[in-house]
Amino acid sequence: MQTPLIDDLISALRVLPGVGAKSAQRMAYYLLERDRKGALRLSGALQEAMDKVGHCEQCRTFSETDFCPICASSKRNQNEICVVESPSDIAVIEQSGIFRGTYFVLMGKLSPIDGIGPDEIGLPLLELRLQQQDCSELIIATNPSVEGEATAHYLQQMAKNYQIKVSRLAQGIPLGGELEYLDSGTLTQAFISRREV
Amino acid sequence: MQTPLIDDLISALRVLPGVGAKSAQRMAYYLLERDRKGALRLSGALQEAMDKVGHCEQCRTFSETDFCPICASSKRNQNEICVVESPSDIAVIEQSGIFRGTYFVLMGKLSPIDGIGPDEIGLPLLELRLQQQDCSELIIATNPSVEGEATAHYLQQMAKNYQIKVSRLAQGIPLGGELEYLDSGTLTQAFISRREV
Repeated sequence: MQTPLIDDLISALRVLPGVGAKSAQRMAYYLLERDRKGALRLSGALQEAMDKVGHCEQCRTFSETDFCPICASSKRNQNEICVVESPSDIAVIEQSGIFRGTYFVLMGKLSPIDGIGPDEIGLPLLELRLQQQDCSELIIATNPSVEGEATAHYLQQMAKNYQIKVSRLAQGIPLGGELEYLDSGTLTQAFISRREV
Repeated sequence: MQTPLIDDLISALRVLPGVGAKSAQRMAYYLLERDRKGALRLSGALQEAMDKVGHCEQCRTFSETDFCPICASSKRNQNEICVVESPSDIAVIEQSGIFRGTYFVLMGKLSPIDGIGPDEIGLPLLELRLQQQDCSELIIATNPSVEGEATAHYLQQMAKNYQIKVSRLAQGIPLGGELEYLDSGTLTQAFISRREV
């Protein structure tokens, strides 16, 4: 017995990932009751972002300018390319501060069963960059899932065609992880990749 | 190293209750990547709702019309008034289908320490209704918190001035609850309010 506009708002809030009927209702009432200004700000930000945010012409991450801040920065090493699946992967790598090169965002991963081939994840653009740029290293940071591994393998082959050094992020025991709770796949990888010290 | 528009969107998403930095980022990327249409719909729904949703003139719940659908309905018993703290309480009572009267929404509860007195929770409006309408019963459904109890007590006194029957929702063991996990306050109430069978 809610009014149509409130119903609309509740159902619209459900487009957000992880928001079900109950949380959507809670959010709608919260905004109406306590933060109408914030809600209008959110409305504006959504509109602006959806209208203006496109993709970086070099790395395919989200950007409202032709080149994203990382690709446009003179402080970043343009010859090291780290390939990730999604823009949120960039965020987490940037947070660590370990990498000073540039990225290439696949916006997905190879998945022939879903009709996602090399073209869909922008590999022609990456290949063009490998041809034209003096690339020193291609760091593959796809997720360790089945499709991620397949994508990594494909990228590896591609880079080898251009005699470019390829590397992958190490797999093993996470910092602060306990052996007791580790899955056997990770433990197997940690054994295989063990280092002499 | 996100672009300003994406940063704006992420920080704007944090107005939603229960959404922190990490979820806001996940939501922003999700919308940009997979549901721009849904995001624009959400933007529109927010704008519409914040602009047009006000309060019902009779019961103070959210409504874009002068009277909310419940107050305007001829099928509802206008002489039974259930007093609740917030519009979401109406939603949960309506879901149960047990109540066919009308509501009065306090939009808060008495809390002198925060400067919330009878005027702030609309009690003059309720008093006017008790005076003018032929009210048969006032059902108090405030939450069983300290402020909720104080509010209930105040309402009780008010209704008694007009010789109106007052009742409160029963407190006790919830359906499907187990004694073992019950807090002692609830258990005490359940003992005090025990019924002969």
